[in-house]
Amino acid sequence: MAEDKVLSIDAKKAENFSEWYIQVLIRSGFVDYSEVSGCIVYKPLAYGAWQQVVEAIDKEFKSDGIEDSCFPMLIPEKLLKKEQTHLKGFTPEVAWVTHTGDTELEERLAVRPTSETIMYASYSKWIRSWRDLPLRYNQWNSVLRWEFKHSTPFLRSREFLWNEGHSVFATSEEALKERERIISIYMKVLKEYLALPGILGKKTEYEKFAGAVETYSIEHIMPDGWSLQGPDHHYDGQNFSKAFDIKFLDKEGKQEYAFQTTYALSTREFGVMVATHSDDKGLVIPPKIAYIQVVIVPIYKKDNQEAVNAHAVKIYESIKGKFRVRFDDREGYSPGFKFNEWELKGVPLRIEIGEKDIANDSVMFTRRDTGEKQAVKISEIDGSISKIFEMMQEDLYRKADEFLRSHIHVVNTLDEFKSILKEKGGIISAPWCGNTECELKMKEEYGTKIINIPVEQPKHADKCIYCGKKAEIAANFAKSY
Amino acid sequence: MAEDKVLSIDAKKAENFSEWYIQVLIRSGFVDYSEVSGCIVYKPLAYGAWQQVVEAIDKEFKSDGIEDSCFPMLIPEKLLKKEQTHLKGFTPEVAWVTHTGDTELEERLAVRPTSETIMYASYSKWIRSWRDLPLRYNQWNSVLRWEFKHSTPFLRSREFLWNEGHSVFATSEEALKERERIISIYMKVLKEYLALPGILGKKTEYEKFAGAVETYSIEHIMPDGWSLQGPDHHYDGQNFSKAFDIKFLDKEGKQEYAFQTTYALSTREFGVMVATHSDDKGLVIPPKIAYIQVVIVPIYKKDNQEAVNAHAVKIYESIKGKFRVRFDDREGYSPGFKFNEWELKGVPLRIEIGEKDIANDSVMFTRRDTGEKQAVKISEIDGSISKIFEMMQEDLYRKADEFLRSHIHVVNTLDEFKSILKEKGGIISAPWCGNTECELKMKEEYGTKIINIPVEQPKHADKCIYCGKKAEIAANFAKSY
Repeated sequence: MAEDKVLSIDAKKAENFSEWYIQVLIRSGFVDYSEVSGCIVYKPLAYGAWQQVVEAIDKEFKSDGIEDSCFPMLIPEKLLKKEQTHLKGFTPEVAWVTHTGDTELEERLAVRPTSETIMYASYSKWIRSWRDLPLRYNQWNSVLRWEFKHSTPFLRSREFLWNEGHSVFATSEEALKERERIISIYMKVLKEYLALPGILGKKTEYEKFAGAVETYSIEHIMPDGWSLQGPDHHYDGQNFSKAFDIKFLDKEGKQEYAFQTTYALSTREFGVMVATHSDDKGLVIPPKIAYIQVVIVPIYKKDNQEAVNAHAVKIYESIKGKFRVRFDDREGYSPGFKFNEWELKGVPLRIEIGEKDIANDSVMFTRRDTGEKQAVKISEIDGSISKIFEMMQEDLYRKADEFLRSHIHVVNTLDEFKSILKEKGGIISAPWCGNTECELKMKEEYGTKIINIPVEQPKHADKCIYCGKKAEIAANFAKSY
Repeated sequence: MAEDKVLSIDAKKAENFSEWYIQVLIRSGFVDYSEVSGCIVYKPLAYGAWQQVVEAIDKEFKSDGIEDSCFPMLIPEKLLKKEQTHLKGFTPEVAWVTHTGDTELEERLAVRPTSETIMYASYSKWIRSWRDLPLRYNQWNSVLRWEFKHSTPFLRSREFLWNEGHSVFATSEEALKERERIISIYMKVLKEYLALPGILGKKTEYEKFAGAVETYSIEHIMPDGWSLQGPDHHYDGQNFSKAFDIKFLDKEGKQEYAFQTTYALSTREFGVMVATHSDDKGLVIPPKIAYIQVVIVPIYKKDNQEAVNAHAVKIYESIKGKFRVRFDDREGYSPGFKFNEWELKGVPLRIEIGEKDIANDSVMFTRRDTGEKQAVKISEIDGSISKIFEMMQEDLYRKADEFLRSHIHVVNTLDEFKSILKEKGGIISAPWCGNTECELKMKEEYGTKIINIPVEQPKHADKCIYCGKKAEIAANFAKSY
């Protein structure tokens, strides 16, 4: 028998989340560890899904006027040093190229941890007049951040894939207006493709991006109740334009420094997606981004293999132009083995075709997320697949959203805070005075950080739960990845 | 006036090719130099065109069963050292990461110059049985080769974009069959997208890829008569599988080393494409891959701006879902200025709309490559654009192919060789004994190398033009980039 591989996971999501998470990712063949510590291999299952996400976002970006570009992966040290806050934020994690061949370089080159500094050196050359603005370039690439903490695929990887958008505007108003559009693009793709909800909010001064004036982010919740930061948008004001001398002549002929923004969505989202939707049988991938959307498994008996196969091939041919389909006619594997394997790999829909189905002019559908089975007439296959995919997308999102909502706890006193933290975890919304001191003391004492100040503020008391001083806002506290 | 930019090139292609080449690339805004010596910035015009090429090739690859993946950009030194020929070929050009943050790494990490070694370390883990084969993964990424020669955008860049395909087969027959399919995919995309012809042939032992058994390549000719190597396919036999221990159990239960291939097409092709098709007015980009395919320029007079604009917008709206279109309604620029700018940027088709056109229910088309003008009825715009694009594609390819054919010279003696080399240059096909000694001596004496042994062999004498010994083949000699 060929059934010699380990095609199941033994850890339980509810019992041992972190072990389950690794088993789901590795045993499904979604990703694998590599020979470089902290860096993973994206196998076709993962990279194919990422290509779908890229396509979806890129389309939205382009219709908003954003253009794709590609800058060098190496950054001269002198450029990294131009903006001091940015430098402090990133240099501890930078990988340095010091030699090429046998020659030592005169100046070290950083493998990009993010591309502000190399891009803005060019922007400074290109931008002369208000006519050159807005300039809105994006990149799809990978970046390297050599963190020394324990690495976990997607959630904390030293190399990850992302988009990095870098816009330049003549006015701060335009820059701030972009934020709304970018955030709504990210929210839309998260909902309609990754089936992920999130909480939109502003980062505190302490947590904002190195070099930014304001950072807005979408925060997720993981199945273990910890939060994880999703895509973000930074309004940089004139911080970088002053450091990089990005000036333009305005309509009145006056020299002005430009206003800048940056925004990013990364493969960290795949960590949230896999953790949120998958189960003890393996991956569950939302249908629009699944690398393989449908698998067809013919069910043979000894004497009918040819007839069943011919029938199955016909169905395969009729849908393969419309969906990403695999026809699993491997010999030496039982149907049950194949079912397990494709469930482990998270293929949203399985179509079984056996002798009985042929007689009934139908096939058998099985939904990956719910396990629901349904006989479908051959003439209705296309429409039924589309309908099931729509339902699956809605169901996955609804379940994830319910989970998120049920893990946000509004409290008004420190005692409530402590008891919720101990008993329930999740995201705790509490009134906060706005001082970094309280933020850091709570971080130290309770291991929670302020993940954001949510845009949709709950009703809350007017006293900071920590210091008792006036609190005009409620902040979201959580243990965070 | 806003017309303050340099929007023309002054070097002539026929007189000063290398200066013209740089001016065309930089002044058009296709690419720019960066702050990292030898690395360029791909502006949207270039990167958008590359995205079209990627899409075209990726579709062909996928329908041939090739899957995309993504491996780490860094490679531990010990992996690079596993295959000695490969190591010798690449280490002189490797950029080494030696530090991260303030910490020196225990083992140096190479920024990938190519990914054989990091991929095959994984392949060795993944492949166990004949059931795991063929395994055919591709990557779209950028690689770094720190050459010390004078760098030229695309033709010799330290960082370039490419596909790198790495397949594993159970038999050498399958591996060799793949070559035909990959080469025909490359030839097809070169012809139908980049409008580029090439000469298919086998590399000599001296010129083949470091670690390969056989290298086949497509060789181009540049306007200056020098050749340039295009995409290639390497049959590696068991060289790497033995070095990386890539073994499988065959159907008889015997352990065998696998057979491997690799293949690549890079942004060097953009150098050939730009050099081949462009002219003294600027870029000429084949229509299917042009980032902007059509530009609409409304022609105002003082009193009809609103009417003309409204009309032009309608036409813009009607075609923007089918083609990549820009509507150039910038104020403060004359139509002539706009025409120059879009010609410089290589937009394949310009549509002018003025008062007279509105009266005639038509618009004015201008083809970028020939400058031909044509009035087109509004109801026929879509069809006419498609037709012009088809013609343009054919014309560009035919012209390039004629140029290539007219620069291949078949000779049978060393005297002929020398006189052709002096008077005409180009590619010289000559009988060759097959010995590296003659190959290298001719390289030293005449500055020509053997670019390949063409698959389509011309009639040739049976004596090596250099040593006079028996020659069973004719080889293509050329000065080469």
